[in-house]
Amino acid sequence: MARRIAVSTGGGDCPGLNAVIRAVATTLIRDYGIEVFGIETGYDGLLGRGGARVRPLTEATVRGILPEGGTILGTSNRGSPFAMPREGGGTVDRSEEIIRRLNDLDIDTVVTIGGDGSMKIAAQLQDLGVNFVGVPKTIDNDLLITDVTFGFDSAVQVATEAIDRLHSTADSHHRVMIVEVMGRDAGWIALHAGIAGGADVILIPEIPYAIDVVVTSLVKRARSGQKSSIVVVAEGAAEAGAGAMYLDRPASTHSAARRLGGIGNQVAEDIAEACGADTRATVLGHVQRGGSPSPFDRVLATRFGCAAAHLVASGAKGRMVALRGADIIDCAIVDAIAKPKLVDPDGELVRAARSLGVSFGG
Amino acid sequence: MARRIAVSTGGGDCPGLNAVIRAVATTLIRDYGIEVFGIETGYDGLLGRGGARVRPLTEATVRGILPEGGTILGTSNRGSPFAMPREGGGTVDRSEEIIRRLNDLDIDTVVTIGGDGSMKIAAQLQDLGVNFVGVPKTIDNDLLITDVTFGFDSAVQVATEAIDRLHSTADSHHRVMIVEVMGRDAGWIALHAGIAGGADVILIPEIPYAIDVVVTSLVKRARSGQKSSIVVVAEGAAEAGAGAMYLDRPASTHSAARRLGGIGNQVAEDIAEACGADTRATVLGHVQRGGSPSPFDRVLATRFGCAAAHLVASGAKGRMVALRGADIIDCAIVDAIAKPKLVDPDGELVRAARSLGVSFGG
Amino acid sequence: MARRIAVSTGGGDCPGLNAVIRAVATTLIRDYGIEVFGIETGYDGLLGRGGARVRPLTEATVRGILPEGGTILGTSNRGSPFAMPREGGGTVDRSEEIIRRLNDLDIDTVVTIGGDGSMKIAAQLQDLGVNFVGVPKTIDNDLLITDVTFGFDSAVQVATEAIDRLHSTADSHHRVMIVEVMGRDAGWIALHAGIAGGADVILIPEIPYAIDVVVTSLVKRARSGQKSSIVVVAEGAAEAGAGAMYLDRPASTHSAARRLGGIGNQVAEDIAEACGADTRATVLGHVQRGGSPSPFDRVLATRFGCAAAHLVASGAKGRMVALRGADIIDCAIVDAIAKPKLVDPDGELVRAARSLGVSFGG
Amino acid sequence: MARRIAVSTGGGDCPGLNAVIRAVATTLIRDYGIEVFGIETGYDGLLGRGGARVRPLTEATVRGILPEGGTILGTSNRGSPFAMPREGGGTVDRSEEIIRRLNDLDIDTVVTIGGDGSMKIAAQLQDLGVNFVGVPKTIDNDLLITDVTFGFDSAVQVATEAIDRLHSTADSHHRVMIVEVMGRDAGWIALHAGIAGGADVILIPEIPYAIDVVVTSLVKRARSGQKSSIVVVAEGAAEAGAGAMYLDRPASTHSAARRLGGIGNQVAEDIAEACGADTRATVLGHVQRGGSPSPFDRVLATRFGCAAAHLVASGAKGRMVALRGADIIDCAIVDAIAKPKLVDPDGELVRAARSLGVSFGG
Repeated sequence: MARRIAVSTGGGDCPGLNAVIRAVATTLIRDYGIEVFGIETGYDGLLGRGGARVRPLTEATVRGILPEGGTILGTSNRGSPFAMPREGGGTVDRSEEIIRRLNDLDIDTVVTIGGDGSMKIAAQLQDLGVNFVGVPKTIDNDLLITDVTFGFDSAVQVATEAIDRLHSTADSHHRVMIVEVMGRDAGWIALHAGIAGGADVILIPEIPYAIDVVVTSLVKRARSGQKSSIVVVAEGAAEAGAGAMYLDRPASTHSAARRLGGIGNQVAEDIAEACGADTRATVLGHVQRGGSPSPFDRVLATRFGCAAAHLVASGAKGRMVALRGADIIDCAIVDAIAKPKLVDPDGELVRAARSLGVSFGG
Repeated sequence: MARRIAVSTGGGDCPGLNAVIRAVATTLIRDYGIEVFGIETGYDGLLGRGGARVRPLTEATVRGILPEGGTILGTSNRGSPFAMPREGGGTVDRSEEIIRRLNDLDIDTVVTIGGDGSMKIAAQLQDLGVNFVGVPKTIDNDLLITDVTFGFDSAVQVATEAIDRLHSTADSHHRVMIVEVMGRDAGWIALHAGIAGGADVILIPEIPYAIDVVVTSLVKRARSGQKSSIVVVAEGAAEAGAGAMYLDRPASTHSAARRLGGIGNQVAEDIAEACGADTRATVLGHVQRGGSPSPFDRVLATRFGCAAAHLVASGAKGRMVALRGADIIDCAIVDAIAKPKLVDPDGELVRAARSLGVSFGG
Repeated sequence: MARRIAVSTGGGDCPGLNAVIRAVATTLIRDYGIEVFGIETGYDGLLGRGGARVRPLTEATVRGILPEGGTILGTSNRGSPFAMPREGGGTVDRSEEIIRRLNDLDIDTVVTIGGDGSMKIAAQLQDLGVNFVGVPKTIDNDLLITDVTFGFDSAVQVATEAIDRLHSTADSHHRVMIVEVMGRDAGWIALHAGIAGGADVILIPEIPYAIDVVVTSLVKRARSGQKSSIVVVAEGAAEAGAGAMYLDRPASTHSAARRLGGIGNQVAEDIAEACGADTRATVLGHVQRGGSPSPFDRVLATRFGCAAAHLVASGAKGRMVALRGADIIDCAIVDAIAKPKLVDPDGELVRAARSLGVSFGG
Repeated sequence: MARRIAVSTGGGDCPGLNAVIRAVATTLIRDYGIEVFGIETGYDGLLGRGGARVRPLTEATVRGILPEGGTILGTSNRGSPFAMPREGGGTVDRSEEIIRRLNDLDIDTVVTIGGDGSMKIAAQLQDLGVNFVGVPKTIDNDLLITDVTFGFDSAVQVATEAIDRLHSTADSHHRVMIVEVMGRDAGWIALHAGIAGGADVILIPEIPYAIDVVVTSLVKRARSGQKSSIVVVAEGAAEAGAGAMYLDRPASTHSAARRLGGIGNQVAEDIAEACGADTRATVLGHVQRGGSPSPFDRVLATRFGCAAAHLVASGAKGRMVALRGADIIDCAIVDAIAKPKLVDPDGELVRAARSLGVSFGG
């Protein structure tokens, strides 16, 4: 009897998910004759009332999905099966149900395409005897074990296109334009898009900024004849402790504003307040997570998918694929999630940006 | 002696300004041997302390600017020369200075590329004896006299691309995605981008919305199995009087939030609050005003520029170019600014959107 | 009993077909409760051996197709049902079969989305008692009755993007770059993309070119210091009678070359031969017909589809929708196909291009 | 006295050249106070009759060029200074002149941004005492020493967008679409764009194809219900020795056709002839070399430029920058040009494509 494999996508959306699903399924079917099933909406799909929501993936069902954004399988936002929200409040461990359902379906390995969270769950379930092969997925590119993850290039493109467009209009109007991009813990998108777009200020979580340092650099630019400035802000950027002082602003107003408008609007307000500049904010939001993946991401996602399929076929357990230089390698899932890859404030990329005149506000 | 003509750009940025400048200058120079000068930063450029900031425009200086966003001449944000801000406060009428400077420069006609405001000033100065030919410019497409203005198509493209990207990620996550687009008084960008992007809700200034009507349509969609919804909001959209009631929210919080985050964030908050949907907002801002004009806008801007040049050469006074069907026509500037072109709530376009299931929240 | 309507797409591919199908079906279903069927692969679908290939179109089946290129119904390339190719050679009139099949299916009106050819067939079948409502479709924009057709804007965008890209590389290399675009009988795509892209030479069917006039303009440019030139050639462009003389080339080689490489390669060869310039050709081909329609085309296609649905519902017979200025109008199908809309060699658009220095080679 | 450095770009155009120039110049000026000069049109610029054509590069002159295609310095196509074409025929060694001119200008190091050819010249001149630092540039990505070169990602994007567009129109029409892309000796662009675009056949120089193998795979696809196929052909793809036999075609016609139309048109003809399929060819040509670099290429080019500047400042001699994994490294120029990086016919990438059903025609 043919082996049966399941594929699942988890966590935030990321361009390239469908490319991975297609590559995994097609390779397993064509090269190995393995049956492939798709689990809908992540682990939720295994815990449905009427039984698991899984469906066969054939060459036909994955045809044409390569360039599509999103995931044909859907994702869940309900957290770990080890701690699922209970109706009356609190959480409940439903991992055994997951294992039972997978056994009922005769699934011998789950290919999990997900981020940090999904890999942690996979590592836990692996310990309980469910076999996993992982494909790393994070738009933020903050996984230490792989040089780059798919989705990141697409997100950087969306952000860079926005910056490109802002340049001309900023110049015509003598303005400071702020663009808020994704990156709650890691500033990779802001850093790459900022360099690619020729930003003047880049604010990232790894380098706490002082608003007066930002303002000083903007004023200096204006005095040297630069008509406008572009500020790229990662959503996780934060003021250094002392920096917020001089603004003399009640904390409550600040946080309320922030909740609604986000850090991008906050920085725009702060700059306008501090130096009277005419500021405007663009908040890209989920536009960065959607749409057709860039060719780079499609190729990487396809390679990851094929490599994961070969791993599955070879009987690998608890392994994850990754890119190292020009090669696809594999590593233990548990090693992959040990610690995140953050921007090195003294690294080559930040130094390159500084050489080009970029201020990090600190 | 050759006639001398000046070109000026005024008001908000708009893709296609450079295409007009190039067409005006090249046509006047090549076809008529007329000398062309560019006035920098709008009327401000004529009022500089060290004399007028004008520079000769030659075929060489306008070469290659066709696809560039922004304006090589810059624009002013300082308002009408009839009421310019005075240092100590209040305003001062500097129109006579403008006239004197133009006379000193031997400029016999000014080609003014601008919106409503610029055309009003032109009409006033025309009465005082300065000759004007107008090229209409508004990203909002709200001029009654012309079928369409350049810049609008580019803005709609930027907004539609954003909506396209949000669709896939909204679907994967079962979310309500809000996109705030430009349009303070007229909802054309929201309406066109909303139709082009397949939005589910479109909120425009011309149709005051009730948040409960919006929420009802979203809930109905969710119940019929639609996993996600896209809401396009013009920045000038506003709740109908009664609509805000049920939210039971202190007005002060509301307006403070709005000031910082804009109507897009407000709508996102309100929807989340009213029905518990997972909402995310994208605020495009000036990204819609910048960047390379679309081919449609480049052709229209070029045609406007050439037509304006021919008008100038023919000795026209106080006329403005416009598009009517497939033809470039001209009309009196004073007629052009009589009243704005707003979306007709009962017109064919709104009805088409409604036929496709779009809710306008009212 | 509910009325039953069929939709069919015919002829060459065109971005926006799916947007029309969606708008027709959704409007008929939602606003009128009319049943809608899709005929597959044009008239071929009605003549299948196993019976007509039609399928119900519901709101669900047309959901999400708005931004997709191509047509979910497919098209036929087999010509008119009045003269279909017969197996042994020659043609056969199968129009009666068409009528019988439509009667069997209880279809009372066919919405035909097609070009000149499709409209002619519709007019003929209308005379035989089958009711038609037409939606004009031509990427070439050569229909007299409508200001513009959907698909044209998308094609112009693809061509303009190519020209934009060629500019920088042409400049770096001091080359003459040739771009062949679509337009067998009408030069609209070449003219609009040429103007939008800032081309130096535009060759269209309506203005026969002399290669020596083209070469003279290129040499003049080079002598005046312009490092490179861009030549846009419509696939239907042709040399004027005398123009080919001086090349002293055996006709047979010429036509063989042309068959393989197309007019773009021919012009590249001819220019290189005549003046020794370093030339390179880009032949865009069907890239211009594919891909997601531009927002402009999506809105126009949607408006056409909704208007066609309303016509159908009102019982209209033999009418076609069209754009006139800002309005959607309707006209008799027979009037629509009377004569094509060609570029006027002395019209405003050609004159605008000439004012900007464009040579048409004649 | 400040050191003086020159920058030069050579060989074919490549998106990202300006980004390198900007990064080199800005870093040398800001971080080291070194004077930077740009040599115009490669080595030709040093050999002008009226003296060397060099110009100072300042922060102002390189401002805003980051996203621009082409090179502000221009390139030469006239070959090596060791063997320049002589007026009367033959070649002449002008290397000593080059050295003299550089000495006269007090240039102590030349940053050469170029491909294989430029690096060979640099290595030769280095032996003669002129100091060089190299930045690798090849759109084809065929340099062994660096994981990837800038320009490649942009070229792959252009090609992939074309393939994306062809899919929908191919499907509607049941056609075989051929896309010819760059790659005379290496098939990287075809391979990456083919995988990213979901091509069905990829023909590259490294895997000689047999047309009957190609046709068999296309026929098999058609029989399995696939309505259309996409064939990506690198310009350097070639039939295997025996493959051409059965076509029974006089060699002269073949080569004449090829000269004019290129391999893309040839493959289209051959497929049509062999199986009667309706084929259409797109020949992208220099569109792949032009236009704004992708964000990936801008970041890589910027990093290369900064790293080259630091090398120059440190007094490095005969070194070239390269990307290795996530790091910028440097190596001896002479090692960099030892042998090209070709697609491994049995490598992971080709195998991944095969797993997805791609035929390489051999």
